[in-house]
Amino acid sequence: MDSERYAGRGASSGKEEVHQAVSTLDKGLFPKAFCRIFPDYLGSAPDHVNILHADGAGTKSALAYLYWKETGDLSVWRGIAQDAIVMNLDDLFCAGAVDGFAFSSSLARNKRIIPGEVIREIINGSRDFFERMGAFGISIHYLGGETADIGDLARTVIVDGTMACRLPRADVITNEKIRAGDCIVGLSSSGKATYEQDYNSGMGSNGLTSARHDLLHHDYWKRFPETADPAMDEKLAYCGPYRVTDANETPLDTGKLLLSPTRTYAPVLKEILESGREKIHGLVHCTGGGQTKCLHFMPDSVSILKDNLFDPPPVFRMIRACSGSDWREMYQVFNMGHRMELFLDPSIAERVTHIAEKYQIGARIIGKVLPQSGYRLMLRGDFGEIRF
Amino acid sequence: MDSERYAGRGASSGKEEVHQAVSTLDKGLFPKAFCRIFPDYLGSAPDHVNILHADGAGTKSALAYLYWKETGDLSVWRGIAQDAIVMNLDDLFCAGAVDGFAFSSSLARNKRIIPGEVIREIINGSRDFFERMGAFGISIHYLGGETADIGDLARTVIVDGTMACRLPRADVITNEKIRAGDCIVGLSSSGKATYEQDYNSGMGSNGLTSARHDLLHHDYWKRFPETADPAMDEKLAYCGPYRVTDANETPLDTGKLLLSPTRTYAPVLKEILESGREKIHGLVHCTGGGQTKCLHFMPDSVSILKDNLFDPPPVFRMIRACSGSDWREMYQVFNMGHRMELFLDPSIAERVTHIAEKYQIGARIIGKVLPQSGYRLMLRGDFGEIRF
Repeated sequence: MDSERYAGRGASSGKEEVHQAVSTLDKGLFPKAFCRIFPDYLGSAPDHVNILHADGAGTKSALAYLYWKETGDLSVWRGIAQDAIVMNLDDLFCAGAVDGFAFSSSLARNKRIIPGEVIREIINGSRDFFERMGAFGISIHYLGGETADIGDLARTVIVDGTMACRLPRADVITNEKIRAGDCIVGLSSSGKATYEQDYNSGMGSNGLTSARHDLLHHDYWKRFPETADPAMDEKLAYCGPYRVTDANETPLDTGKLLLSPTRTYAPVLKEILESGREKIHGLVHCTGGGQTKCLHFMPDSVSILKDNLFDPPPVFRMIRACSGSDWREMYQVFNMGHRMELFLDPSIAERVTHIAEKYQIGARIIGKVLPQSGYRLMLRGDFGEIRF
Repeated sequence: MDSERYAGRGASSGKEEVHQAVSTLDKGLFPKAFCRIFPDYLGSAPDHVNILHADGAGTKSALAYLYWKETGDLSVWRGIAQDAIVMNLDDLFCAGAVDGFAFSSSLARNKRIIPGEVIREIINGSRDFFERMGAFGISIHYLGGETADIGDLARTVIVDGTMACRLPRADVITNEKIRAGDCIVGLSSSGKATYEQDYNSGMGSNGLTSARHDLLHHDYWKRFPETADPAMDEKLAYCGPYRVTDANETPLDTGKLLLSPTRTYAPVLKEILESGREKIHGLVHCTGGGQTKCLHFMPDSVSILKDNLFDPPPVFRMIRACSGSDWREMYQVFNMGHRMELFLDPSIAERVTHIAEKYQIGARIIGKVLPQSGYRLMLRGDFGEIRF
């Protein structure tokens, strides 16, 4: 699972090239904050800021398509709706927002193979998710969206969303307060939170191109050519042992294990932030980049040691077994156990883990911030030591 | 060019199925307004409203890719950036907004074939366009965006954008004031406006799947298979006479004729709206649906007669000649001469056309609003009478 392998699949492990292309863009008021933060262009209040953020379900929708065609189970599209929302929502929470979100969806489909009933599931799934968040006092207003029928561009369907919010400038988590002495609390990506209906495998919406091809059986290359780039080297395409309906050690079949909707931490983070945010020094959503995501947001003056990580949940162990990836690769692509991390004053670590546990989300101190050492980030565990 | 032909190409002429899928969504405060208008969720001011709008360049990017590969001309990607922006911006102008926009881009690419230099052109093209609009007092703030590397979903690259704005409720053009007696001023889609650098063919970002396949030569089906759905009936794919570098009666080669960046009417509309909006009863951006787009926004109590339409610019005559489409189809898919129409009190028609002409944009009274007749919309001209 090296970078050539990603490139051969039309995906990427890092985004250096994109970062370079957008390097001239305004990084906003707080360059280390998890989202780009701008003056209040929408409201003209000097004490407020704006965020307009785009993200989506990525290639998870190609797997949803395959699963739906294989089983007839339309419900997987509701999970995709959640993926596209949470990839935005939890990013905005990392910037300090806790309420008053506006969302617009952007769907691109091949009308030849994606009928209206799929669009309906995605729309209704979005609305249901917003209602569930509403019960926690998190209002997300659905302001519409666009469905483009562009079969010459979209092999199946792409599910993206954009989220806007406006928040008090003083509420922004800038990540600039991260400092030596902070501890890092990780919130588990797997299990079953009080607000989830099924076991969550811990899969987010990153690394799905790799996971899908490395786990699933080569039959799918022939049977569902529309789920992959046909110009891909056939050796890289669906080279795993599993059919989507195969059982594994978890309560979910293998398709649903990979399709497990991206968990939101919004209810937990809302309670944590509202119970006092001054000692929360940083928030990082471990999406693309996995456990190395923090590298983009930490101050240059510190090093990070993660030496008490969660055991990797079954889905990541299965991916590793099938892909033959080394641990370094795995931790760079997947969250491997926690997809949300809080950098905070040790005095509130217990309060924070206690709040998470109320929602039946595992939480623990997974590491700490040190004065600058010979590395920027070190991961340490049964797998050894990995330095970045 | 019937609906089966659209479906065979993974595109659509109408969007009934999508409209049905989203029919349960909140239509906002003013259901006839061109964009969905919501209470001020972002600012909580009772006298303000919010819009969050998504749209994109559609399959025009597949043609930009083909042209770029064939000629090496990267500049076409700047046009695509403009397409994705204007498809949002001019929609928001139709709702009455004239300033204070926030934009976020959303790119989905196959990294195997779309390198960073393409992303850079799109980003820089976006920024340049915002600067050009800034000169007219139209501020569009670039708040970031996302580039997803998803080769299993995106054949080449999809260029979308989302635009947010917040405006005084009293400024909203609700289209509810459209009434019998209004005249309709159309603003020409082709020519060369004072703020354009080249001749504009009048092509927007709609109907490009049809136009591309009906005009361009079948060679491209073999040479650039990544620009089309491979499952399409080969008879529908690139079945025209032209190479992209072929000349035609216009100053542009045939590729650039189709790629002509979607004209914005923003500078014109800003001046019109700021010189008094009370007699502007409606604004319709003739995008998907072409000259029938107004059907979604007109009151039920009136009929619309368009009996003085612009002569179709060359690009649309070429598409008609190649596709064999009848006039009804052509007017339902393409703007055919004007992509912006204003419903207004006849007393200000001259002032409005005068403003447009200052920008060297052709403007004329193309029709009028009548008491309810035996049709909802009639187009009348050399082509005969077409009723809807």
